[in-house]
Amino acid sequence: MPAKSGEFSRIARFFAPLAAGFPGALGLSDDAALIRPQVGYDLVVTTDTIVAGVHFIGDEPPGAIAAKLLRVNLSDLAAMGAVPRFYTLNIALPPEIDDAWLAAFAEGLGADQAAFGIVLAGGDSVSTAGPVTLTVTAFGEVTAGKALLRSGATAGDSVFVSGTVGDAALGLMILRGDLDLPDDEARRHLTGRYWRPLPRVRLGPRLTGLASAAIDVSDGLVADLGHIVAASGVGAIVHAASLPLSPAARRCVEERPELLETCLGGGDDYEILFTAPGAARPAIETLARDLDLPITEIGRVVGEFGVQVIDAGGQEVAVAHAGWEHR
Amino acid sequence: MPAKSGEFSRIARFFAPLAAGFPGALGLSDDAALIRPQVGYDLVVTTDTIVAGVHFIGDEPPGAIAAKLLRVNLSDLAAMGAVPRFYTLNIALPPEIDDAWLAAFAEGLGADQAAFGIVLAGGDSVSTAGPVTLTVTAFGEVTAGKALLRSGATAGDSVFVSGTVGDAALGLMILRGDLDLPDDEARRHLTGRYWRPLPRVRLGPRLTGLASAAIDVSDGLVADLGHIVAASGVGAIVHAASLPLSPAARRCVEERPELLETCLGGGDDYEILFTAPGAARPAIETLARDLDLPITEIGRVVGEFGVQVIDAGGQEVAVAHAGWEHR
Repeated sequence: MPAKSGEFSRIARFFAPLAAGFPGALGLSDDAALIRPQVGYDLVVTTDTIVAGVHFIGDEPPGAIAAKLLRVNLSDLAAMGAVPRFYTLNIALPPEIDDAWLAAFAEGLGADQAAFGIVLAGGDSVSTAGPVTLTVTAFGEVTAGKALLRSGATAGDSVFVSGTVGDAALGLMILRGDLDLPDDEARRHLTGRYWRPLPRVRLGPRLTGLASAAIDVSDGLVADLGHIVAASGVGAIVHAASLPLSPAARRCVEERPELLETCLGGGDDYEILFTAPGAARPAIETLARDLDLPITEIGRVVGEFGVQVIDAGGQEVAVAHAGWEHR
Repeated sequence: MPAKSGEFSRIARFFAPLAAGFPGALGLSDDAALIRPQVGYDLVVTTDTIVAGVHFIGDEPPGAIAAKLLRVNLSDLAAMGAVPRFYTLNIALPPEIDDAWLAAFAEGLGADQAAFGIVLAGGDSVSTAGPVTLTVTAFGEVTAGKALLRSGATAGDSVFVSGTVGDAALGLMILRGDLDLPDDEARRHLTGRYWRPLPRVRLGPRLTGLASAAIDVSDGLVADLGHIVAASGVGAIVHAASLPLSPAARRCVEERPELLETCLGGGDDYEILFTAPGAARPAIETLARDLDLPITEIGRVVGEFGVQVIDAGGQEVAVAHAGWEHR
């Protein structure tokens, strides 16, 4: 029988060390955590649940599951312009999860805590007869009143996106056996983007005061831009030819042009998609250089509702699968 | 087939109305919620996950499940001395959950929001192939530095508990068929205490400055007092004869004296168990009158480690099942 700890010893052994840097966690041994908010800041709170068999397969390395769980939340904080501070963790575990799994999972959390400057503040650990179910609630800080919302886009603004898009959707196709790619390195790049998204935690806070609206690309570029324009009461036109693609994604699209639609519609890139007035362009270019992160202008905000994608010839590109509803 | 909404319409239809009173929830349509902390207050954050088949049976009325979920969290806030403010909600639902279930669940949340002055700030809704899995993360406010911790008890302090204890454990025995009670009203009282615990949200904040340590009775009186004395580096003696029992629980114990142990060891009462110096006694009596809530002195804090329960004759009462590890 695999070694298994009870709830209290599980928390003390695997999770209390992750909270050691935060006095308000009270060693994970009190009824709740204590947070002393900084004067002049708003607290940004986001939460995501992932379930084995729905959001991940279940037999991945536990550290990779931990990374995905934390990073999707960090990406939400970044898209609001917030600096990550701490998080709470709720885990529901079936009987087959043993201490070795938990140790690897906690190690993954610890590595990302160090990488992204976040610390565990509290949580809950329970049993389930169902699949592994994991919830993170993440807390970040943003200067009071400066949070980036979805609702601030104005006709005439430009549309920008960080990094490259489509990689994660192509990576998921590879993992599902729907896309065959002979190049090992390209395959690793794409699946890695799916597995270990890089939340733009440095970019987000730098966009406060520059961007008029922002969101992270989780549902898919077109769907997420749709969320912005719906919340802002405007529309947008995207130039397909401007879409920033990684070399691996570009090769996929060159070989199978229909995969452009995957890049436009597929989710999980966790880049920041934002709108900004033209006057902000020089500051955005400087920011991209400072962070050594491409930021690409891909379209503009218009008065008509909806999101339209057009190709280099001005023809509309159909995006049938314009974002999936997250399950 | 039962009517079922997708994620976005589910949130808009059932949950957005619960967030209507809180502008920082951004209509549940942004990446995260925005909280503007009050200057001079600490934020208290607590979180609990409940799973069908583990923490509840699954076929209870959805409104009762909603009440239990919120109330266990409100009780944690109360035990820290915090006034409840808002909460986030994560739901993982199997395919058989339809809109009627969700409507009743949301109605239960709404009723408790009104009763306890709390509002929905954000959340996540996902699918699962497993049992219904529900997480609430609740936020409360307490004057900075005044939160009640488990660690402040000192030898010489008295031990107090609000309301009555043991009802919920007896109620659970009835629900499981392990306790037969002919009196309808007594049966309803005990199962009601299990199903609809009354978190002491008014008492908790009034104990700041009076109590030296506090916890809510969730693991069981003896186990929870054990948590206080362990965190405080002291011990405690409890007088079994002083234990506040409801008339229904008293009748159970009179008929089957071994049920006293159930009252001492069983959990889920969600009363507040606290320690305070003798000098606080008059203020505590006034508070009990103000709130029309019994507060009973049941023992004292001593220098030796551990919790000892003694009967009227000074003999030690064995509590074999001194608190269960929550699953």
